[in-house]
Amino acid sequence: MAGPESLAFHPLLYVAWADGELAAEELAMLRGHLREAGLPEGALAEWLDPGAPPSAERLLHLLDEVRRRAADISPERRRSLTELGIAIAEADGAHPTREERAAILRIEEALGLGGPDAVATLFDPARPIAPLPEIRPRFDPVAMARFLCGPSPETRQRVCALLSDGRFEPATGLSTADYRARVTEWCRTLADEGLGALSYPAEFGGGDDPAAFIATFETLAFFDLSLLTKFGVQFGLFGGSIHQLGSRRHHEKYLRDAGTLALPGCFAMSETLHGSNVQDIQTTAVYDEGTREIVVHTPVPGARKDYIGNAARDGRLATVFAQLEVEGEGRGVHAILVPIRGEDGEALPGVTIEDCGEKLGLNGVDNGRLHFDRVRVPRGNLLDRFASIDDQGAYRSPIASPARRFFTMLGTLVSGRVAVAGAALSATKVALTIAVRYGARRRQFGAPGEAERILLDYPAHQRRLLPRLATTYALNFALHDLQAEYVAAVTAEGEPGDSGESEVGDAARRRRLEATAAGLKASASWHATDTIQVCRESCGGRGYLAHNRFAALKADSDVFTTFEGDNTVLLQLVAKDLLTGFRQQFGDLGALGIARFAAGRARRAIAERNWIISRKTNEAHLRDPGFHDAVLDARRSDLVLSLARRVRHRIARGMTAFDALTDCQHHALTAARAHVECEVLRSMTAAEGRTPSSGVAEWLERLRCLYALATIEREAAWFLEQGYLDPPKSKAIRRTVTALCAEIRPQAIPLVDAFDVPRSSLEGSIGL
Amino acid sequence: MAGPESLAFHPLLYVAWADGELAAEELAMLRGHLREAGLPEGALAEWLDPGAPPSAERLLHLLDEVRRRAADISPERRRSLTELGIAIAEADGAHPTREERAAILRIEEALGLGGPDAVATLFDPARPIAPLPEIRPRFDPVAMARFLCGPSPETRQRVCALLSDGRFEPATGLSTADYRARVTEWCRTLADEGLGALSYPAEFGGGDDPAAFIATFETLAFFDLSLLTKFGVQFGLFGGSIHQLGSRRHHEKYLRDAGTLALPGCFAMSETLHGSNVQDIQTTAVYDEGTREIVVHTPVPGARKDYIGNAARDGRLATVFAQLEVEGEGRGVHAILVPIRGEDGEALPGVTIEDCGEKLGLNGVDNGRLHFDRVRVPRGNLLDRFASIDDQGAYRSPIASPARRFFTMLGTLVSGRVAVAGAALSATKVALTIAVRYGARRRQFGAPGEAERILLDYPAHQRRLLPRLATTYALNFALHDLQAEYVAAVTAEGEPGDSGESEVGDAARRRRLEATAAGLKASASWHATDTIQVCRESCGGRGYLAHNRFAALKADSDVFTTFEGDNTVLLQLVAKDLLTGFRQQFGDLGALGIARFAAGRARRAIAERNWIISRKTNEAHLRDPGFHDAVLDARRSDLVLSLARRVRHRIARGMTAFDALTDCQHHALTAARAHVECEVLRSMTAAEGRTPSSGVAEWLERLRCLYALATIEREAAWFLEQGYLDPPKSKAIRRTVTALCAEIRPQAIPLVDAFDVPRSSLEGSIGL
Repeated sequence: MAGPESLAFHPLLYVAWADGELAAEELAMLRGHLREAGLPEGALAEWLDPGAPPSAERLLHLLDEVRRRAADISPERRRSLTELGIAIAEADGAHPTREERAAILRIEEALGLGGPDAVATLFDPARPIAPLPEIRPRFDPVAMARFLCGPSPETRQRVCALLSDGRFEPATGLSTADYRARVTEWCRTLADEGLGALSYPAEFGGGDDPAAFIATFETLAFFDLSLLTKFGVQFGLFGGSIHQLGSRRHHEKYLRDAGTLALPGCFAMSETLHGSNVQDIQTTAVYDEGTREIVVHTPVPGARKDYIGNAARDGRLATVFAQLEVEGEGRGVHAILVPIRGEDGEALPGVTIEDCGEKLGLNGVDNGRLHFDRVRVPRGNLLDRFASIDDQGAYRSPIASPARRFFTMLGTLVSGRVAVAGAALSATKVALTIAVRYGARRRQFGAPGEAERILLDYPAHQRRLLPRLATTYALNFALHDLQAEYVAAVTAEGEPGDSGESEVGDAARRRRLEATAAGLKASASWHATDTIQVCRESCGGRGYLAHNRFAALKADSDVFTTFEGDNTVLLQLVAKDLLTGFRQQFGDLGALGIARFAAGRARRAIAERNWIISRKTNEAHLRDPGFHDAVLDARRSDLVLSLARRVRHRIARGMTAFDALTDCQHHALTAARAHVECEVLRSMTAAEGRTPSSGVAEWLERLRCLYALATIEREAAWFLEQGYLDPPKSKAIRRTVTALCAEIRPQAIPLVDAFDVPRSSLEGSIGL
Repeated sequence: MAGPESLAFHPLLYVAWADGELAAEELAMLRGHLREAGLPEGALAEWLDPGAPPSAERLLHLLDEVRRRAADISPERRRSLTELGIAIAEADGAHPTREERAAILRIEEALGLGGPDAVATLFDPARPIAPLPEIRPRFDPVAMARFLCGPSPETRQRVCALLSDGRFEPATGLSTADYRARVTEWCRTLADEGLGALSYPAEFGGGDDPAAFIATFETLAFFDLSLLTKFGVQFGLFGGSIHQLGSRRHHEKYLRDAGTLALPGCFAMSETLHGSNVQDIQTTAVYDEGTREIVVHTPVPGARKDYIGNAARDGRLATVFAQLEVEGEGRGVHAILVPIRGEDGEALPGVTIEDCGEKLGLNGVDNGRLHFDRVRVPRGNLLDRFASIDDQGAYRSPIASPARRFFTMLGTLVSGRVAVAGAALSATKVALTIAVRYGARRRQFGAPGEAERILLDYPAHQRRLLPRLATTYALNFALHDLQAEYVAAVTAEGEPGDSGESEVGDAARRRRLEATAAGLKASASWHATDTIQVCRESCGGRGYLAHNRFAALKADSDVFTTFEGDNTVLLQLVAKDLLTGFRQQFGDLGALGIARFAAGRARRAIAERNWIISRKTNEAHLRDPGFHDAVLDARRSDLVLSLARRVRHRIARGMTAFDALTDCQHHALTAARAHVECEVLRSMTAAEGRTPSSGVAEWLERLRCLYALATIEREAAWFLEQGYLDPPKSKAIRRTVTALCAEIRPQAIPLVDAFDVPRSSLEGSIGL
């Protein structure tokens, strides 16, 4: 090699060659700069010959030499290849001239090797160890947790305490048989604590407290979803069907034992060929006037009861849904109590029980199939709140229309959807707590020489987790509103009969409750499936290990999307309800009236559009709850109106309502989702308005903004199509979503901690 | 009741009252019409008093009476309440006058009770039993299947035959220990058949046929993903690392035994604290010149090797990645062969092996953790294709730059990503086959009196499954192109050294291959996760039963999103490659050049925009491959250009490249996805161009249209923002997606059958 001056070029030469072959023009340029600076080209000749690029061995030696020399140079002089080269040359006794320094810098620039990245390719500097930033809640965490937790906080606390008192050891590594046995044991413990009967009347050993029952259910979902499901089947569906569809006689005979689990039971509605379409189930229940018995029968194999929880192992009595026939007349679907298993555990004569076998999840629940071969039960086993057979063998019902009777009966079972929505959200909270806490501690990759970056500091990681955190908050409040509505309805029913008019009001309220429950069950369960998956992926390989809980959460919660009503079917129910509401409001107007209404609506829409767009991309506007509400409400209303028009148009052309709605199915589902999203926003905004102080409101506001804007962003195509957004505003919304994620990120841990997932549910996981 | 004339009103009256209370005005209107027709109001008085609505009992009697009388009326006279009423009256001997008939019709209209829906509330008519439509492929199914199957069809057939020959009984209901043993047995069977060594050189017992190895892997994915993974770990990763990173000495010593499974091994790269960021792993490998040994050590607990397949039970030798230090100098990550377990199955001294325990899926694979306590191995255990230690103890490498050496080493492992992408698509094909076949046979709901409708005839069901079917076809061709590229690269490497220039070309091709593999692995695995979930939901409760395969498919394939490279990290790699390509194309232009280029590009973009928009919503245009390509390519180019600008801007402001790219992460990921989508479309379009005749091309064309338009629809917000679509065109695209789904629906079964999922993989499921 050459004199000390040429040393100054070594770092640059190494990096340039190591990055890839230098082209002839680049080398010519290099030689030119050296000549200009008056440097002897010969000293560096071996690095400048395009015909003979240096061998890897030569380059490795050069690297080693540079590294050795650089070891003594202070870090401040290592910030660029030029600086480092000059420092090395100086350390060797050289004094590069001004021209030489300028030449080096020009070469550095020409090769695009300025800045820290180029130096880093040389050193592979050690990463400093950085502590995790301290996280101090910027709000009162106790107040936030209390505000989020919803009604019956004492019940929630009691259940949490119970679940961590040693009797509830997580069921890991158990065989299916042992897991089922364990879950039954757990259920018994909960029943012994009086939790199963919470919603039943006090005179039958109950707690007269449907809110506490739902709170129990939501809390169990933090722990084990097989237990949750078995608990729901026994106390909610089986006991609940006796409570809601039976009369006093049934309550007296069965309700206490259902609540203590002395009488394990099933809710036998679904059949192999009819799950969603309950109205067309095929099991028959024919009244035999001679013996005053009802004959329950499975007429074809596809009419067997299927997926029935509690059936394969424990259930002794089943609420069986069947097509009732009295005096030769079909009366539609009714519920009949049918004993299926003796105290010895054997199936009773005429009943065939099969095990559904292994499932995707919930393997602690004994799902089974029931086949009836002309099984006779006394007339009194008909659950007769809405229909009975009198002593003369005549069919009687307080509701004349078979369709209305059917939907009224099914409507009493709304509690299942209310409860499942809450359970799905609890499962989501567990997943988010684990993923956010892990993401806020795990580091991976980083700029050279710096500590690796915390996952949650990556914008993409924030984008994956934080809008879902915001949606979880929003759904939390929407579900509590739903629960309050449900409890009010149940309580009102218990009161003495009202006048005719308020009964109509009750029916409307009831229908709204059912639609809201359907919509929120669909939203919350899809949100759970989506969020749990994203959380698992956010934890990488660790997320795949069973002890980190995603395995069970994912497999078990998956069923929420299709049980207690398939989500797609439920959203159609929401859409139908929106159309009914629409008809009630405008039904009498006739075609001309509708046209006039639509014109008026269009004028309003234009005005709204202008208002919504008007202030465009300004920060305060984009975060304004009025803007959020106007946008999501406009979407809902427009979609419902256009759906109504399209359906009406088809019916006018002679289609059945079924065909018309099916033809517009995609539109109907979109309208239903838009409706639910708007209602969820309203719950969230209302909650914001009643927050305690201590910074809670401020963080809820950010989460509401994120929920609303992320929802608008997802549906931006529609808003752009309709003219509610223009391109600059759409882009501004995207930027604001990213900005909100960054704002919320420092408080992400306190915000998931406020979910109050019991410590025992996180034990042994990366969420602790 | 009254004379026979009034009978004509009974159906109408029943339905009106059963639907809900009639309002006073409605009753007044009713009375008015009766009066006009000269009918004696008294005959119907009991139904017309707003002060005393009929009881449910009266209505039930009315219903029974109407039903009884209607039983004798022919179905043609039951099409409306008016018709039915008149027929009933006539059957009773009445002869309603013209005026009476008109009055009934007016009432029907005024109450909005016209049409079939109103009649249906009365009858609940029995549904006819309809056979399933016969499905005749409109294309040559054998030609389609052959065209889809890709290279090495004979290997695929051989593996399929093997998997159904009795030795491969599905592993259901096994304990984890038994499942692991079963999978090891299966692997041995495959090895005995010579399938493990397919890609190794013939002189070491191999097949010299990397394409056949990948075909085997893809085919195994139809069967059991634990077997697939174990097979991949042993023959692909462990054996492959010896083959690709070792030299002849290593091949001679180990490759034959790796291929026969005589030597079970591990690929120990990931560590607890470093999964994605391999460059920063912490395991050390220090060369001890005195003993000529390498000392492999786990310096901190987080540096233990984690999630290592084959480690917990079987592996005896491991390819361990560690930071090599020679003569006190850090040389970066290198691979060293370390024996971990004796023939007796016990861990060797200094090696601690832990079991990772239960996982979300793949429980037939024995994942474990390895901890090394200063384990010494001979110098020759360094896999030395890219770096070695010479007899003098000096470090030597044909690649001078540590970073380039690292990425070259990692690059040789690209086969893992190629293979995983294919396996993910196979799993997707199984799920789609089951869900489509089930959806084409299952009926649920329907218009009154009609057979229930087939699920796949619902537009929403089509929308869920068919665009995913189209994407699966498109990815099928993209993956086969990738495989061909990979095989060409591997084959080229085996050939004698080329000139310098073609080496540069090789490097660029290699880099492109790596980026394509990364992008397609991410796309195919996310597509699998999403599609399998949707398929499971589409099958309702049945989808939740383990024997219908979604349980295993979902749990096992989930890992594909994060192993062999986390998908988010992989897409960033794609983005970086796009920027590099960008730099290579335009790097020399300087800032001014870039600005000029950008301006030119913008002019072009406007021209393109105009062209893309010009013919707007016309059918032929929307299905034109030129349009599809132009749109997706414009998106990709725009996003890459704006990303390049934003990154360059940040670097110019002094950010490191890492910080600049992180700051634009969301943008970078979007650009990467847009790139992959565009490339996938090109593969699909190219495939269309080389189809055999017999109708194949025509159906591929429809699927390509659906893939392209569904992709554009999903990204419609961006296209609207950029002015590539205007609102009417965006809406037209949505309509065309729906229309394409309906067009493809009748051939949905033949189209999934062409995936040729082996019958044995569907055995016992609803997919058969």
